[in-house]
Amino acid sequence: MALLLDNQFKDLPPDKAIDTKLFLEAVSHIPQFFDCLGSNVFSVIKSDINGNIMKIRAVYMKDPAKYVTLQDIVEAERETHAAEWPKVGATLALMWLKRGLRFIQILLQSLADGEREENNPNLIRVNITRAYEQALKRYHGWIVQKIFHVALHAAPYKSNFLKALSKGEEVKEEDCLANVRQFLVNYTATVDAIYEMYTNLKAELDYTV
Amino acid sequence: MALLLDNQFKDLPPDKAIDTKLFLEAVSHIPQFFDCLGSNVFSVIKSDINGNIMKIRAVYMKDPAKYVTLQDIVEAERETHAAEWPKVGATLALMWLKRGLRFIQILLQSLADGEREENNPNLIRVNITRAYEQALKRYHGWIVQKIFHVALHAAPYKSNFLKALSKGEEVKEEDCLANVRQFLVNYTATVDAIYEMYTNLKAELDYTV
Ligand SMILES: CCCCCCCCCCCCC/C=C/[C@@H](O)[C@H](CO[C@@H]1O[C@H](CO)[C@H](O)[C@H](OS(=O)(=O)O)[C@H]1O)NC(=O)CCCCCCCCCCC
Ligand SMILES: CCCCCCCCCCCCC/C=C/[C@@H](O)[C@H](CO[C@@H]1O[C@H](CO)[C@H](O)[C@H](OS(=O)(=O)O)[C@H]1O)NC(=O)CCCCCCCCCCC
Repeated sequence: MALLLDNQFKDLPPDKAIDTKLFLEAVSHIPQFFDCLGSNVFSVIKSDINGNIMKIRAVYMKDPAKYVTLQDIVEAERETHAAEWPKVGATLALMWLKRGLRFIQILLQSLADGEREENNPNLIRVNITRAYEQALKRYHGWIVQKIFHVALHAAPYKSNFLKALSKGEEVKEEDCLANVRQFLVNYTATVDAIYEMYTNLKAELDYTV
Repeated sequence: MALLLDNQFKDLPPDKAIDTKLFLEAVSHIPQFFDCLGSNVFSVIKSDINGNIMKIRAVYMKDPAKYVTLQDIVEAERETHAAEWPKVGATLALMWLKRGLRFIQILLQSLADGEREENNPNLIRVNITRAYEQALKRYHGWIVQKIFHVALHAAPYKSNFLKALSKGEEVKEEDCLANVRQFLVNYTATVDAIYEMYTNLKAELDYTV
């Protein structure tokens, strides 16, 4: 579980404000997660998420002292881009990024919880499908939903996926899953906090692509 | 046809050497072509092609005086990256870019030739499918091929597509297609020349994604 444990998300402070710099650092390793799925079909998703991160980082870099927390960015954009907001800038990028992060969270949680197809315990389709349905499906039109179902055929076996998450080391499934659970603590808290912020600021949109 | 005619490819010299700077300029407008397909399903293709162009431009910018023609770049990389070449750098980016360019060429040619489904003359699926089969299919594994077939459902009507190519102006179909034919002259010659160069330099690969 090197990949995930080496790059843990930080503890949140009591007010759940997310430090932009620390967030960008932790999240910069997330795109590699899609390499663990093993097929270059997923490279387009990696690029999409990479694009989100680059967009947020570009805004942050313009004035790090002003944008200490993610909420500082979203609120500043609400001022400057009143007409288009929230479908604009880093607010839009973070809106989609959090959905990709939620997808990963639910996928890992479902694996950690031992959810599986009894007849095909080494497949992860059931876990991927659960994550997709909870995190993304409602934001996708029928064509992208259908593409998802086709892409599902490129999903790796669980054993290969866990091995890739462990950076190619042969670790026992239970050890790897213990690491996943460890990783999920701060990760889930961070993703939850972003969702809460979008609800509180009425920054969430539900258009489909 | 403003979009295409405003950004024509240049005449090739007798030796068919392609000037890198002029090529990068002309090709920089190609990603917009995918906006004319009208659905954001195609934005991932736009990004992929954009990535190819950025990669070639980055290499060119390192030494414009050295990389006057595209062939200069490919030959220089053959020297410097002997082990991985041609699956490397701008050589790889141009290998894929030319396939996307060929796809567009055949699609436009097929429309200009009046190829159509007699029962659905306002659909362009038959033209897109022809372009896909000739330019890309053999480089795609079965999953991406299946995704292509699903994505085909997001293809626009011919009338909307031609209108978009004309930057939203209502032009007569015949006028638009006359412009397409005009655009295709230098464009096709340029794409052909890149293919020839890849054959001559044995730079072509046929792995699938
Ligand atoms: C040649 C043949 C092929 C033909 C054509 C093929 C086309 C294939 C298209 C498939 C869709 C790929 C997934 C990408 C979907 C993206 O469209 C969405 C929205 O993407 C957002 O859009 C915004 C504008 O509305 C901004 O541009 C955001 O960008 S901004 O930064 O500029 O603001 C951008 O992220 N992202 C998403 O839905 C996020 C997806 C995240 C993770 C998904 C994990 C799924 C794993 C599945 C495992 C089985
Ligand atoms: C959340 C739900 C979704 C789940 C997941 C969805 C996944 C969808 C995946 C669909 C594939 C999208 C098309 C992109 C395919 C690309 O994989 C290929 C190869 O791409 C190349 O790969 C190289 C390495 O092998 C380098 O990285 C190149 O990059 S480099 O610059 O770094 O060297 C890169 O261009 N390009 C292609 O096949 C080119 C395609 C060009 C044009 C196609 C026009 C088709 C129009 C169709 C109209 C109906």
